[in-house]
Amino acid sequence: MNYLRYRYRGKVATGVAEGGRVRELRMGSCDECMETGPPVGLDQVEILCPSEPTKILAVGLNYRSHLDHHAPGTAAPASPEIFFKPPSALLPHGGEILIPPDAHDVHYEGELVIVIGGMARRVSPGEAHNYILGYSCGIDVSARIWQTNDLQWWRAKGCDTFAPAGPVVATNFDWASGGIETRVNGAVVQSGRFSEFLFNPPMIVSYASRYLTLMPGDLIYTGTPGGTGALHPGDRVEVEIPGIGTLCSSVAAGA
Amino acid sequence: MNYLRYRYRGKVATGVAEGGRVRELRMGSCDECMETGPPVGLDQVEILCPSEPTKILAVGLNYRSHLDHHAPGTAAPASPEIFFKPPSALLPHGGEILIPPDAHDVHYEGELVIVIGGMARRVSPGEAHNYILGYSCGIDVSARIWQTNDLQWWRAKGCDTFAPAGPVVATNFDWASGGIETRVNGAVVQSGRFSEFLFNPPMIVSYASRYLTLMPGDLIYTGTPGGTGALHPGDRVEVEIPGIGTLCSSVAAGA
Repeated sequence: MNYLRYRYRGKVATGVAEGGRVRELRMGSCDECMETGPPVGLDQVEILCPSEPTKILAVGLNYRSHLDHHAPGTAAPASPEIFFKPPSALLPHGGEILIPPDAHDVHYEGELVIVIGGMARRVSPGEAHNYILGYSCGIDVSARIWQTNDLQWWRAKGCDTFAPAGPVVATNFDWASGGIETRVNGAVVQSGRFSEFLFNPPMIVSYASRYLTLMPGDLIYTGTPGGTGALHPGDRVEVEIPGIGTLCSSVAAGA
Repeated sequence: MNYLRYRYRGKVATGVAEGGRVRELRMGSCDECMETGPPVGLDQVEILCPSEPTKILAVGLNYRSHLDHHAPGTAAPASPEIFFKPPSALLPHGGEILIPPDAHDVHYEGELVIVIGGMARRVSPGEAHNYILGYSCGIDVSARIWQTNDLQWWRAKGCDTFAPAGPVVATNFDWASGGIETRVNGAVVQSGRFSEFLFNPPMIVSYASRYLTLMPGDLIYTGTPGGTGALHPGDRVEVEIPGIGTLCSSVAAGA
């Protein structure tokens, strides 16, 4: 099931989108989801981010193809290289990535995003799937000069609007056979297969949960394939993952 | 006013502690806080962390005395060197810092903690005080080997229990004339004056808010003075800030 979080007539709801319409989901009497009410046009709702996370993790250097572009000759990391993005950076589908006036060389990084479904603490790779609700699309927006010059990546990866995510959560997505494509103004700029992951979603969830408790709704950006490039005001970025959907963001100059 | 968040008979409350007792605070009809009900013994309540933050920021290298110990000869940073700690790392007053089995050289860093009171986005240093609810004590627990060897500090600074904070929020605390002392098993191991800050609380809040929106309840650890040292299971750490109080944590081996 691919579900959508949205606001309609002031109320936050969860629903299933199909053919330009969304139908609200509510929990039934036996903890089953039921579709209720008449469908509403997608153009009448405000699409929200896939969850309200207590924290957002992201993994760097998780594709050989990205290592080769970003740091040629570097050995693959021995374990997932994790960092945090703050929840204040989230941007829903259709939103505007705002480039701060003093940021330079701000890049797209199209990524598969894990949505955590249950509280996870020290779970094994074999049981990790029980703690994953589903998957979404994301952009790990990255200000390269700050990434190099600051002690840590807090603003390089954490400015407001630097974490687009959406449009839906796909609960039955088979990442192992999937792939991703990033387009800027319609031109394909990144493409990769998830079979190329150095650390796959169950390995990432298991490793992170050895050190910190993952909570329902927490998001994990899983890294980007191949090369990346700078974004400019007026650009339109799309991240498409067949089986999930296409996340769209526009780019504008921040104040 | 120094107020305490606590759980009593299953209910989360806010109150004022005095003489071993706490008296609940409720909002009055004119948005004024009123003390209500009979006082309860502090030993009957479970003290909670000062807030439920959407994110936790921390500042590195914010005292000349710490720079001299940690990285002698290094120039002071030109702007606050910020990083994130996840909310899952929070530990209330009286809790146990758990050292993960594979962590080595895990240090105390006693710190003044800013508690944000209002949504802050691009606020000037001069208006920052309007967005600060008050101050608390904190320990920025830091696993030094991971801090050196990992790409980013996510687990070095972010493991569960690595962010003790409390016991109270002091809303009228004058940091400019204040100081801090850290003790391990009763021996003083750190002491500093807040007049030594390279970046003071209004400067930190203003700078962070240029890039990311601060939310009510967000915490900012402001950096540690002087040298730091390793913690071992069985240790007891105290961070005392006169005018706020004393935060106590014990140390144990994690599973």
